Amino acid sequence: MSADTYTPESVSNAVRQYDGVRRKKAIGNLVKTLHIDNIDVVASYGEDAAVIQNGRSALLLAADGIWNQLMDLDPYWAGYCSILVNIHDIAAMGGRPIAMVDVLSAKDDELMDKVTRGMCDAAKAFDVPVVGGHLHPDAPHNVIDVSILGIAELDSVIYSTTAEPGDAIIVAIDLNGRIHPNAGMNWDSVTMKDPKLLRSQIAVMKTLGERHLLTAGKDISNPGIIGTLGMLLESSGVGGLIDLDAIPRPDLQKLGIGFEQWVRMYPGMGFVVTANQSSVEQVCQLFRKVGMAAQVIGTVTNTRKLVLQKGAEQTTLFNFCVEGITNITTV
Amino acid sequence: MSADTYTPESVSNAVRQYDGVRRKKAIGNLVKTLHIDNIDVVASYGEDAAVIQNGRSALLLAADGIWNQLMDLDPYWAGYCSILVNIHDIAAMGGRPIAMVDVLSAKDDELMDKVTRGMCDAAKAFDVPVVGGHLHPDAPHNVIDVSILGIAELDSVIYSTTAEPGDAIIVAIDLNGRIHPNAGMNWDSVTMKDPKLLRSQIAVMKTLGERHLLTAGKDISNPGIIGTLGMLLESSGVGGLIDLDAIPRPDLQKLGIGFEQWVRMYPGMGFVVTANQSSVEQVCQLFRKVGMAAQVIGTVTNTRKLVLQKGAEQTTLFNFCVEGITNITTV
Repeated sequence: MSADTYTPESVSNAVRQYDGVRRKKAIGNLVKTLHIDNIDVVASYGEDAAVIQNGRSALLLAADGIWNQLMDLDPYWAGYCSILVNIHDIAAMGGRPIAMVDVLSAKDDELMDKVTRGMCDAAKAFDVPVVGGHLHPDAPHNVIDVSILGIAELDSVIYSTTAEPGDAIIVAIDLNGRIHPNAGMNWDSVTMKDPKLLRSQIAVMKTLGERHLLTAGKDISNPGIIGTLGMLLESSGVGGLIDLDAIPRPDLQKLGIGFEQWVRMYPGMGFVVTANQSSVEQVCQLFRKVGMAAQVIGTVTNTRKLVLQKGAEQTTLFNFCVEGITNITTV
Repeated sequence: MSADTYTPESVSNAVRQYDGVRRKKAIGNLVKTLHIDNIDVVASYGEDAAVIQNGRSALLLAADGIWNQLMDLDPYWAGYCSILVNIHDIAAMGGRPIAMVDVLSAKDDELMDKVTRGMCDAAKAFDVPVVGGHLHPDAPHNVIDVSILGIAELDSVIYSTTAEPGDAIIVAIDLNGRIHPNAGMNWDSVTMKDPKLLRSQIAVMKTLGERHLLTAGKDISNPGIIGTLGMLLESSGVGGLIDLDAIPRPDLQKLGIGFEQWVRMYPGMGFVVTANQSSVEQVCQLFRKVGMAAQVIGTVTNTRKLVLQKGAEQTTLFNFCVEGITNITTV
């Protein structure tokens, strides 16, 4: 549990066995059934948001549900996160979030009220309105699903599938936060922040897209820092070598958590991106200007393996030739 | 239970007490909490889809969940309906459906497979792709929520809030169908149809919007024909007088159901619209050309009451001055 005794092996095991990563495996089959070719759809599965061409604009459409475990732990935070993760889906693509719709199923009014307040506070903080949806007031379960529409210039969109061997892998996270008191796997760096700062952090990805400073990018979600990077590398058909010691982290000793936990946590405000080596400084500076820690943590390789390194030790976390995280193949 | 013994009173009681109508009451409070003013949002709550201005275009965004009872009864049909109702939300606004995203929570693979096949068949029949979403493969419940993006010309959008006293009330339904074998409150007029016909039926509303032939419109959903009309009238701040005998219906005697059941059923492919008296013939002809029964069933009034009439008998189903169906007031 000490903060600096982790090894590539211990981190690899922790990530590989983490539910947040493991539960992505069922996606592949679903996609095989649902996929329909459509000329307006530029990108769909494997991206944080689907990209639909509309003239020279890209309409971005995404949906995210909140893990039922979180709903049980803290309905307000579940409501907040339902908005937060959707806004990140659009930001990750280099887009501007426009509006959201929700489907809320609630067993009782108290739960409904808590979830709704969380949604409302997040929607106001990020200034993205919830414009409609559907309500099941008498449901046998508590579920909040949110969907979001965003817009970008078509040539400024950031994809997950476009990382190239030789690119730098950069992680950007706002370390100024807390372990959420009711959800130990969530790093809350948002509920205590000035809305202006939150909006400027979200806007960095749009700027990076417009300036073409990235080769690929994703927001860090339930699978955590390394799991999300794994999905990006899998989608791009490449591999990566990362230095665990380079991954940005808060004072883990003080927080009383191990590094293995930190890399699996949902970081609230975090992105993993790839960039040409020549763009690294500009990319990191843009994140740092809005209070986010940004570091190069490794390099994209042509091996289709994600390899973790610490000092002289190395281990392979994922070998995508053998088994993928999502197994999405139609894209 | 006989098909022709219904009275305004019996129909009124049946509709008022129907869960599909009653469960709309909780929406009002939710909207009060979630509403945020935004200049790009032309319309939101109370409409089948939110309307977001994007230059001279309207982006339409909607979400719908499937009642858990339907998921228990028939997961394939629940999946099919999750697509069907979303496509109708866009059609009802006079829009063209572009793409959908879904959030599926499933307890097991068999359920997931059935729901997904239903979604896939509907998406293919109507030629609207599912382009992404989220999957909870290990959920403690079975839930399918779908969201949809559509597009229309801003000046061709059909709203729910714009019916005017004196307008004709028209109901259009495809009567060529069956009571769904696993869901007695659903009229299935879609699964057995040629996709070309289905697409032409959906496209009628877009034509009506572009030709400015309607003053308001809504797709007929869970609250049934009269319940949906009630929501339209409430949103528009008006009332209506309808002649129950004029409501299109299949051979109810043959089907073994009462009229009280028919008017509460989800009709698969149905719209309730209002139009200037001078447009009535054109509107009905467009629906009839694609095999839908279309009839004037009454008139919009300035009373804020929905009154049901049969011969000399009348009764007030809803008095919106006293109590609304949704109680949405921010719009």
